Amino acid sequence: MTSPLSVIILAAGKGTRMQSAKPKVLQTLAGKSLLSHVLDTCHKLTVNETIIVHGFGGDQVKSEIIDQYTQSSITWVAQTEQLGTGHAVKVTLSDLPKEGQSLILYGDVPLVSHQTLSALKTANTNGMSMLTLTVDNPFGLGRIKRDHVGNITAIVEQKDASVDDQQIQEINSGIYCVDNALLHKYLPELSNDNAQQEYYLTDIVKMAVADGITIAAIEPEHTFEIEGVNNRQQLASLERTWQSKLVADLQEAGVQFADPTRVDIRGTLTAGQDVFIDVGVVFEGNCTLGDNVYIEAGCVIKNSQLGNACHIKPYCVIDRAEIGAGVDVGPFAHLRPDTVLSDNSKVGNFVEIKKSTIGQGSKINHLSYVGDATVGMGVNIGAGVITCNYDGANKSQTIIEDNAFIGSNASLVAPVTIGDTATVAAGSVITKNVDASALAFGRARQTQKDDFQRPTKK
Amino acid sequence: MTSPLSVIILAAGKGTRMQSAKPKVLQTLAGKSLLSHVLDTCHKLTVNETIIVHGFGGDQVKSEIIDQYTQSSITWVAQTEQLGTGHAVKVTLSDLPKEGQSLILYGDVPLVSHQTLSALKTANTNGMSMLTLTVDNPFGLGRIKRDHVGNITAIVEQKDASVDDQQIQEINSGIYCVDNALLHKYLPELSNDNAQQEYYLTDIVKMAVADGITIAAIEPEHTFEIEGVNNRQQLASLERTWQSKLVADLQEAGVQFADPTRVDIRGTLTAGQDVFIDVGVVFEGNCTLGDNVYIEAGCVIKNSQLGNACHIKPYCVIDRAEIGAGVDVGPFAHLRPDTVLSDNSKVGNFVEIKKSTIGQGSKINHLSYVGDATVGMGVNIGAGVITCNYDGANKSQTIIEDNAFIGSNASLVAPVTIGDTATVAAGSVITKNVDASALAFGRARQTQKDDFQRPTKK
Amino acid sequence: MTSPLSVIILAAGKGTRMQSAKPKVLQTLAGKSLLSHVLDTCHKLTVNETIIVHGFGGDQVKSEIIDQYTQSSITWVAQTEQLGTGHAVKVTLSDLPKEGQSLILYGDVPLVSHQTLSALKTANTNGMSMLTLTVDNPFGLGRIKRDHVGNITAIVEQKDASVDDQQIQEINSGIYCVDNALLHKYLPELSNDNAQQEYYLTDIVKMAVADGITIAAIEPEHTFEIEGVNNRQQLASLERTWQSKLVADLQEAGVQFADPTRVDIRGTLTAGQDVFIDVGVVFEGNCTLGDNVYIEAGCVIKNSQLGNACHIKPYCVIDRAEIGAGVDVGPFAHLRPDTVLSDNSKVGNFVEIKKSTIGQGSKINHLSYVGDATVGMGVNIGAGVITCNYDGANKSQTIIEDNAFIGSNASLVAPVTIGDTATVAAGSVITKNVDASALAFGRARQTQKDDFQRPTKK
Repeated sequence: MTSPLSVIILAAGKGTRMQSAKPKVLQTLAGKSLLSHVLDTCHKLTVNETIIVHGFGGDQVKSEIIDQYTQSSITWVAQTEQLGTGHAVKVTLSDLPKEGQSLILYGDVPLVSHQTLSALKTANTNGMSMLTLTVDNPFGLGRIKRDHVGNITAIVEQKDASVDDQQIQEINSGIYCVDNALLHKYLPELSNDNAQQEYYLTDIVKMAVADGITIAAIEPEHTFEIEGVNNRQQLASLERTWQSKLVADLQEAGVQFADPTRVDIRGTLTAGQDVFIDVGVVFEGNCTLGDNVYIEAGCVIKNSQLGNACHIKPYCVIDRAEIGAGVDVGPFAHLRPDTVLSDNSKVGNFVEIKKSTIGQGSKINHLSYVGDATVGMGVNIGAGVITCNYDGANKSQTIIEDNAFIGSNASLVAPVTIGDTATVAAGSVITKNVDASALAFGRARQTQKDDFQRPTKK
Repeated sequence: MTSPLSVIILAAGKGTRMQSAKPKVLQTLAGKSLLSHVLDTCHKLTVNETIIVHGFGGDQVKSEIIDQYTQSSITWVAQTEQLGTGHAVKVTLSDLPKEGQSLILYGDVPLVSHQTLSALKTANTNGMSMLTLTVDNPFGLGRIKRDHVGNITAIVEQKDASVDDQQIQEINSGIYCVDNALLHKYLPELSNDNAQQEYYLTDIVKMAVADGITIAAIEPEHTFEIEGVNNRQQLASLERTWQSKLVADLQEAGVQFADPTRVDIRGTLTAGQDVFIDVGVVFEGNCTLGDNVYIEAGCVIKNSQLGNACHIKPYCVIDRAEIGAGVDVGPFAHLRPDTVLSDNSKVGNFVEIKKSTIGQGSKINHLSYVGDATVGMGVNIGAGVITCNYDGANKSQTIIEDNAFIGSNASLVAPVTIGDTATVAAGSVITKNVDASALAFGRARQTQKDDFQRPTKK
Repeated sequence: MTSPLSVIILAAGKGTRMQSAKPKVLQTLAGKSLLSHVLDTCHKLTVNETIIVHGFGGDQVKSEIIDQYTQSSITWVAQTEQLGTGHAVKVTLSDLPKEGQSLILYGDVPLVSHQTLSALKTANTNGMSMLTLTVDNPFGLGRIKRDHVGNITAIVEQKDASVDDQQIQEINSGIYCVDNALLHKYLPELSNDNAQQEYYLTDIVKMAVADGITIAAIEPEHTFEIEGVNNRQQLASLERTWQSKLVADLQEAGVQFADPTRVDIRGTLTAGQDVFIDVGVVFEGNCTLGDNVYIEAGCVIKNSQLGNACHIKPYCVIDRAEIGAGVDVGPFAHLRPDTVLSDNSKVGNFVEIKKSTIGQGSKINHLSYVGDATVGMGVNIGAGVITCNYDGANKSQTIIEDNAFIGSNASLVAPVTIGDTATVAAGSVITKNVDASALAFGRARQTQKDDFQRPTKK
């Protein structure tokens, strides 16, 4: 049986260099706060308890995180003074079980993977394991000293590194898995007798070595897993690194990107076979694409499902829509939440749809607004048609039954039903239901005034 | 007289790493299948015969290629087993003339230039010429061994390369020009007595050397000419390389790109002097731009001609349109096939036009759909005007004669003609022809109900 | 007291490699001509006199610059023959005061900073100061020779550089600050006795050294400050360098960019705290963003002010608009010049607004054109509403008072006033004023024809 696992996340920093009113851990990467990245990763492990150490802007952090993670039990511990990483972990002790082990993570190191954390936990057989990384340029970073048999003996900071130490390329990530018993033993003993007058978490390494503990070390698969964020440039750089990773994974799985550096995935994108994604496309939230989906330039797609062989033309904005197979959308279509487009339907340019279901094979090709509507199969909605769903106080429903034909520039004043195979003449304002197979008019007779004198320029 | 030229294109591979239902040679680069790139390049040479060796997905390859190259005579040869490149060429022998010479090309090496192929053919004076390349990092590639006078003596594969061989930086591209007589002589002699049990085409080099033939070698101008595609990453990388090349050529010719890395040319772009192309523009097919054309961000332009001094504002989608001089389009205009915009006309935002001719100086500035229409000169089409060209069964024509004025939100129910200098009042539905100089109405008189009780929220 | 300052800008070159009908100094970088960059920088200094030496396309240069700098006094001097940089400065002598000092700048070196020029002027205590730069790869550039105490002794061109000279990494920028007295003394003495038969400005350095003058040298902060532009590739490269600089400065100040390489700032962008700018956004002219402004993908924003917490959704085009706090715009909105959106108003998709003021909390959500209008507070403008502001000859005003409700597809024929809390029924054409609190209709009664025989396909 594995030892129960706690997670301690240090999230108290202000992030002064961000020049922000928000605490650093609430800055967003790939559309999600840094802290949420860490929490979401931890939720893929079996965690008994999550302790977040908050400080600067703590109420803001708590309120935003609690909104998102209503089901999770998080213990919030305030670090009222910023006295170093060792101090930050120390303030959790009264909430930390005596038994079990803890992952020590950072709210501003967002991309550590759950595989890495899992391996780090597995590696902790002697009381302490740590995440290290061998890098080309270790300058400025804490080096991992090892003895002649390879056991870790110390972490040496740059300023204390001898010429020999400076050759060491294995660096400390700051991420550990430590038995709680050791944390309870070591943390009260930390000293701040140093230049910065801070309590350093790294000191627990030398305490463990002094206790004769062989510290396990593992390396993450990707460098970005241990990268922290201190300013906007680093945030942007880590964003691009993460985007490259997501794109590369999808390329491996067979997705064709016109330009891997010009696509953004802020959340989870699941794609079928032979999907093509053109330049400038942005995905947010959870999106699923079927086989042979073709997405042209500049589409922005949020939390939507697209069926097989959909063709999304340039510059569509799609949010919380469910799109069937063989559907053509755009260019310049705006699908708002709770839009359902059934198979082989077609939505054309300058069309907005919200809270509506469009039946199989139906077409809304031009300059229309369809809201709060149920549209049957085989319906043709002409250019400029508007469902007048709002009377200034309430929203009402429009029902258009199968095979109806709605002429151009018609206004359908809801609540209203257009019957099966009914026809609405162009330019009509329809306020009463139209019977099946009927033709409805609501427009004036055409008249003419000959030899009209045009207005002249004043 | 030059010896007649055949082309043999090896196109049998599956491309497993593409994770695709399509055979590899049908994957697209710059909007065109890899195999089409090779075929289009060959069509710039004088070729007597093109032989394509197909295998995986052969029917799909044949059907797609035959659709595109209806005029070309292509001989299709099936390679039913994948037994190596030598075997692939061998299966063509029964279709290969005894006389003449053959270029041996690859359906997944799309960007070899016709100049390079021409030079390779010219270099073939002794029976065999090959395309080689000197590279910085030859690791993993077949090296070209030469004797002390510089004659090619062998190709050495990485695994067989001695320490000295590994220093060789000249590598084999796999592209050859060989006399057909030698192919008929050597290919039946190929052996698969090697680790992979494959028939290697490279063995013909040592056979030629044994025959005392001095093999000519030339290098291509660009590295990308010999790069093959095996997975989505390589495909994307080659796409970007190719885009850079196309952009650099246009820069040389005087086109200004706001960002050379953020433009896509999928086909042929011909541009006049002092053209400006902003970020995120995509061209497809054959596009021609006159002098002083100014194209703003994000336009998608396919198979269209734009006259001098056109200004295309952001986010226009233009497909098969012919646009005169001094025309302003957009932002957010959608020009569909068979749109003709005459000189100095203007199409504004949220306007869709298809199969229509717009006369000189005419304006369609806002929120209109104009389809199947002939619009004269000096016409003003107001905001929200719709040509109702479809009655659910048939499309009909709208004719708007010179200097007509169509009021906003008017619906013109086709077939209908609006006469010269006629005026259509705003909001009218016009179902009958309007005489020249007349004013046509089709709307109700305004009435008022005082102290109206607004709906209240339920 | 500082010596008075003249500026001499050499702007006579054709820029043949640009392949342009425009003289080189009129090519644009970041939306502004190269020469304007230099002039705008000089205007941040206290300059007594600006002399521009023009040559190729001089009239075009003069006319474009004079249009932009109507307030400035610029002396234009024609260099009718292109006889070298020394000659170019020499032709200014008759217009150059005998006293004071001159900065010698280049119309095709656009990005030198005013801080650098200021420092260069301050450094000129002995008669001459020059701008140099230490670079990694000095090949091809004039090297700065110094004696054993570090004093400048000569500029050595690449072709004349000894093996030792070629090791020198400090290079000449061509930018100087020189006492006018020395220019009047040295320039007439310049000789063209060299291979190119040109008069070299660099010769004044050796003349000054011969006169025993210790020449001061300073280096600019950024390499790009001394980079010139000779072809489209260099222009594009300098554009990207400049964009990176502008973005980095804004990141330092706390702006979050989704991708620092996919944003364009052509002018001045001032941004508050916690602003987010998504990919593909383009700014032109002077733009100001308040705190917490959120701009989604692909927006194009010119010369506009956006208040706190505005949310601009994807693909809005905004030009000369003034937007209050808490305003939502887009997606696909087009705000044209003289649009004012008051606090908490909302403009939705496919809406165009020009020369109009929209009151607090008012909404124009879908497919509308609002031009020449004054809209009060709390107004709701339905989908497809058009202000018919143009009768073919004149533009007229529409006034919509507070809390009015305009039904969908209504046409408001200007001049017209819709009174306070009035309601316009959907589909109405309104040509007469509507009284406060009234309901106005302008549409036909709905009728029906049963069992309508649909058109059939011909």
